[in-house]
Amino acid sequence: MNYIFEENFEVRDYECDIQGIVNNANYQHYMEHARHQFIKTVGLDFVDLHNRGIDTVVSKIEIAYKRPLKGGDSFVCKLNIKKEGIKYVFLQDIYRIPDMSLCTRGKVEAVAVINGRLSVSEELDKAFGCSEQSE
Amino acid sequence: MNYIFEENFEVRDYECDIQGIVNNANYQHYMEHARHQFIKTVGLDFVDLHNRGIDTVVSKIEIAYKRPLKGGDSFVCKLNIKKEGIKYVFLQDIYRIPDMSLCTRGKVEAVAVINGRLSVSEELDKAFGCSEQSE
Amino acid sequence: MNYIFEENFEVRDYECDIQGIVNNANYQHYMEHARHQFIKTVGLDFVDLHNRGIDTVVSKIEIAYKRPLKGGDSFVCKLNIKKEGIKYVFLQDIYRIPDMSLCTRGKVEAVAVINGRLSVSEELDKAFGCSEQSE
Amino acid sequence: MNYIFEENFEVRDYECDIQGIVNNANYQHYMEHARHQFIKTVGLDFVDLHNRGIDTVVSKIEIAYKRPLKGGDSFVCKLNIKKEGIKYVFLQDIYRIPDMSLCTRGKVEAVAVINGRLSVSEELDKAFGCSEQSE
Repeated sequence: MNYIFEENFEVRDYECDIQGIVNNANYQHYMEHARHQFIKTVGLDFVDLHNRGIDTVVSKIEIAYKRPLKGGDSFVCKLNIKKEGIKYVFLQDIYRIPDMSLCTRGKVEAVAVINGRLSVSEELDKAFGCSEQSE
Repeated sequence: MNYIFEENFEVRDYECDIQGIVNNANYQHYMEHARHQFIKTVGLDFVDLHNRGIDTVVSKIEIAYKRPLKGGDSFVCKLNIKKEGIKYVFLQDIYRIPDMSLCTRGKVEAVAVINGRLSVSEELDKAFGCSEQSE
Repeated sequence: MNYIFEENFEVRDYECDIQGIVNNANYQHYMEHARHQFIKTVGLDFVDLHNRGIDTVVSKIEIAYKRPLKGGDSFVCKLNIKKEGIKYVFLQDIYRIPDMSLCTRGKVEAVAVINGRLSVSEELDKAFGCSEQSE
Repeated sequence: MNYIFEENFEVRDYECDIQGIVNNANYQHYMEHARHQFIKTVGLDFVDLHNRGIDTVVSKIEIAYKRPLKGGDSFVCKLNIKKEGIKYVFLQDIYRIPDMSLCTRGKVEAVAVINGRLSVSEELDKAFGCSEQSE
């Protein structure tokens, strides 16, 4: 796949559970952080957007868990984005460093909510390079 | 839908983020806790299983976010289970209390890993009432 | 000690780490949730207070870890409060159920911040029964 | 103060609560991660130690919260260690980057537990440079 952004991480031991592997919910945290870091690279900021009444709200998430991360592992979360109708679809895959084995494959659908209403945000479209809807 | 188990919760304020709503990853925590509580009702225990070398490992998760939970909300996570091939498929939906509006609809696929190998666990099959594969 | 409020909990497996015991930081979560539940019993609400510009901000925390909680354990967080100068001091101890062995002994100091400034809040003083400063 | 180790971090938005600031419990996570990173620099590993029956268990924690971190903030957790009797005392302070204002001042006491018993670990003493007790 073609990715447009990537963020490096290192597993923190508190993210691991009794099985000695990263708890499943934490992959959502990693993916959220990678999205918010991506948003910064296009000149926006999650908190600033929120304070201006613009929220990107996740409407659906799918994660396929392929291989668990363990304490001490380094990994990278790679990301691409496309627009499907009103939705922003983030494709986010996590690879272990350095062997680059695939750990999780994720798809996150988000929508823009402006002042509490489902909306089209030209600002987000432009920032994400999605000004034309591309099915 | 027909559910066979339910677990009640109350949102804890630390689970909410700057948007004032429960952070998406926490729904996975709620769903995990509901599954583990369900497992207890069928006479098993997640930690005890782990210590005996039997892990149920989540292979895929899908969550549709319909309506956010806020600080102070009560909710119930309802659960059903079916077996598809080697996979246990948990259907887990979260409803806000008391109006029972649907907050999230989730599907969690898990497999049995015994001593590190993908396996069929008769013990889990029997406990989950899935001794016959039901597509 | 004399306690004026208590909240029951059950350990959730995702709160445990690779040592099989509840991660230390989660006791702060339990204590925070107990405080916020206590605040409700005196007619206030953490989120509502925040929305009205009144925040109770923790300025110091001390926790002595006596005995770890494990997956499946039930426990109770008991609480008392006193005022020392401008600070609210919450004494919060966690006991395992049913043997009531002491797990953690905690002291949380908080101050009132109104519209961003350190303040005296008569509303909080009254609600907490601390209208007279008691050194 | 004199520090012997430091670890850089960036606040992740999911670590912030409805007040828009990092939830208090997360500072414990930051401090734990910094300790475990420090342990690696002296040739040890938290998970590996655990698997060999050696656990460092936190017996007491004190954190003074001076100034909150917000979404987007970078910070550094600086660390020093001394031994007091049987206890390892980690002094861990968090400073915001780049102005280096003090955010939290922390003190973490830990003990060595070997195969479930409170013990003196020469391996840890040597690694931490605490082979002589230094009050």
